[in-house]
Amino acid sequence: MRRLDASDPGFAAAFDALVHDRRESASDVSADVAAIIARVKAEGDAALADYTARFDRFDLDASGWSISKEECAAAYEALAPELRVALDLAAERIRAYHAAQLPEDRDYRDAVGARLGARWRGVDAAGVYVPGGRAAYPSSVLMNVIPAKVAGVERIVMVTPTPDGWANPVVMAAAHIGGVDESWRVGGAHAVAALAYGTERIAPVDVVTGPGNAWVAEAKRQLYGVVGIDMVAGPSEIVVVADSRNDPHVIAADLMSQSEHDPTSQSILFTDDAEFADAVAAAVADVIPTLSTAATMQASWADNGAVIVVPTLGAAIPLCDRLAPEHLELAVDPVEAEALFAQVRHAGSVFLGRQTPEAIGDYVAGPNHVLPTGRRARFSSGLSVTDFMKRTSFLALDDESLVAIGPAAVALAEAEGLPAHALSVRNRLNKTNH
Amino acid sequence: MRRLDASDPGFAAAFDALVHDRRESASDVSADVAAIIARVKAEGDAALADYTARFDRFDLDASGWSISKEECAAAYEALAPELRVALDLAAERIRAYHAAQLPEDRDYRDAVGARLGARWRGVDAAGVYVPGGRAAYPSSVLMNVIPAKVAGVERIVMVTPTPDGWANPVVMAAAHIGGVDESWRVGGAHAVAALAYGTERIAPVDVVTGPGNAWVAEAKRQLYGVVGIDMVAGPSEIVVVADSRNDPHVIAADLMSQSEHDPTSQSILFTDDAEFADAVAAAVADVIPTLSTAATMQASWADNGAVIVVPTLGAAIPLCDRLAPEHLELAVDPVEAEALFAQVRHAGSVFLGRQTPEAIGDYVAGPNHVLPTGRRARFSSGLSVTDFMKRTSFLALDDESLVAIGPAAVALAEAEGLPAHALSVRNRLNKTNH
Repeated sequence: MRRLDASDPGFAAAFDALVHDRRESASDVSADVAAIIARVKAEGDAALADYTARFDRFDLDASGWSISKEECAAAYEALAPELRVALDLAAERIRAYHAAQLPEDRDYRDAVGARLGARWRGVDAAGVYVPGGRAAYPSSVLMNVIPAKVAGVERIVMVTPTPDGWANPVVMAAAHIGGVDESWRVGGAHAVAALAYGTERIAPVDVVTGPGNAWVAEAKRQLYGVVGIDMVAGPSEIVVVADSRNDPHVIAADLMSQSEHDPTSQSILFTDDAEFADAVAAAVADVIPTLSTAATMQASWADNGAVIVVPTLGAAIPLCDRLAPEHLELAVDPVEAEALFAQVRHAGSVFLGRQTPEAIGDYVAGPNHVLPTGRRARFSSGLSVTDFMKRTSFLALDDESLVAIGPAAVALAEAEGLPAHALSVRNRLNKTNH
Repeated sequence: MRRLDASDPGFAAAFDALVHDRRESASDVSADVAAIIARVKAEGDAALADYTARFDRFDLDASGWSISKEECAAAYEALAPELRVALDLAAERIRAYHAAQLPEDRDYRDAVGARLGARWRGVDAAGVYVPGGRAAYPSSVLMNVIPAKVAGVERIVMVTPTPDGWANPVVMAAAHIGGVDESWRVGGAHAVAALAYGTERIAPVDVVTGPGNAWVAEAKRQLYGVVGIDMVAGPSEIVVVADSRNDPHVIAADLMSQSEHDPTSQSILFTDDAEFADAVAAAVADVIPTLSTAATMQASWADNGAVIVVPTLGAAIPLCDRLAPEHLELAVDPVEAEALFAQVRHAGSVFLGRQTPEAIGDYVAGPNHVLPTGRRARFSSGLSVTDFMKRTSFLALDDESLVAIGPAAVALAEAEGLPAHALSVRNRLNKTNH
């Protein structure tokens, strides 16, 4: 963990290092992934069966390629009641938040009489990648599937590796709640390639979203343009801005809620009180050994954690903007939280006040938990219904509006050296009565 | 030009080939581009000067690195009056259309008392690539710069190659109208790398948009994630759906208005009248030799053009959806245009009725002319203000709303094996009076 103080002479350089030094992934898998994609494109299901036997150690033909809707429904019915209620509440709140996000079509006539507009439609088919193993999170299923459903996507396809043939029942239950139409027991870069190009069994989709390991992320990056994708995701991050009126153990748990995701996760505290900073650091040391994710938290906190003392909490915000964190907690009184939030330029999602832990946003708040990482909140946004939609602009002119704006188009086309453009407009101007 | 008839027995296979066979670019420049990016990242301005000397044959230090705002203003004042009026009209209409696109912030309290919302902000800085040479289009400057300006971007940076040191005055005038803050005389993959990573002279930006050759497109693709980018663009396309009541020469000019862009451009006619199809093909042959872009049109039409006879115009729409064209003209009577448009699922921009040539949309209609190509309208949209903005979601809970939804978050965190997530919520539940 780095301990920085904004009043130290070396602070600017140390903070710069904190912003820029973090590596997202050391492994270069691009050549491996390119080979996998090429093979799936050429060989289809045969390639999927082979890769699955190799990486997930089971036979797709023997165990079954897909998980049926009935199996997902049964998994939902078999959930512990408390968990079923929790998933239902999460789904309902995610659905309500995203339904309010639906963009409005536009269709209007302007001053010259031109009819203009834009029409939104869901894509035909969306593929959602759901990791197996450690990061098999039913909440991710809901966060990816529900926006697609709300967008009006008619075919939602889940791909998920089932190592040794075992499918996670809570993931299956979440697929049932979200309304997944097809679930395939394939994962890895080959599953992403199958979604993009299609195979004998799996029809291609238009958009692929969902988290995954380095291979999955690289496959999405390479297939961007063949299909739409959500943002390339890096390790999870939290910045907590807290004053000394917080309980250090509460803030420590918030920091650890990101650190427990992965050794590459990053948790950073800004505070205006050096004693409070020490108290939080001590509380982190207290809490780590008490939880089952201790080893991950310890590694993440040691390598990537930071506690930064600033002269005022307001001074933390420009620094925080340079980090453009995925998650930002403003653990202060409501009026001050509001004032700080007004200054924030770059953050994926902001949690205001002392009673709003980031973890609520991972599950049941409603806004999407798929958020930009690695300083990408400078230019990108969390997953939304529009990631599963596209906009078609349209135009209709009559004689009057054509005469009003057509000659300018002719002048510009001629200036650009595009005579057929000019001709296509002039032909029609000649047919009007003006 | 391919001549297809939907009633022929081989039509399905022939149309399938039309949809899938088109190559976007034969050249693989990815290794070259990776080397250029790495060098600009390491050497900054020195690399830019060297690449500019090599590719654009002039000395940046001697000729000047940038084009001043004063030079751009002077270029605007020196424009022919007709062209100045046309550019001003285009800018005004593009600004109005994009201003109406600005997304609304959300801030509301839901049934349990949770405060939820989303806040949009422009990115800090945007870079716009403007090609030199044949494709140096002032309309592209307006179509890229104005949405950024409307989005509230405070720093808009233009990069444009000036081969042999010559800068296009109409491009400079368009930069003045659009409100470009900095203009750098660099182009190619190295200019994109400079925008993404910054150099001694050029501060980095957050989003890079604008058309370019294969090197520029590949540089954007490789830098996607370091910066935001607009969609990877391929050759331009138009599909025209027309009945026999159109003048064949008018439709021929519309087809040629895409064909004249580049030999790889594609123009396709769907009609329900075989004689009209022949008449348009003859009119194309008539018009080509009369225009200065004859060679390009001839090559494009020969290699990629198609005339397709369908039993009814309604039958053209599902075929058109498979092409998901950048531009779609529905050159029929208004009521029928409306009925056909209602069936369209996939198109970048649609032009309704006989008096709405696509070329109007390239210049002065208002909607953006940067549109998805190569079947990407299935999942992506034209450039918009939101490409220069990002959304921050936010949440504020009080005791009541925390008690209402917190226990579900605890249950889900425990099911996912994330105890620090559960603890961060439970800590606060313990502090409420409920």
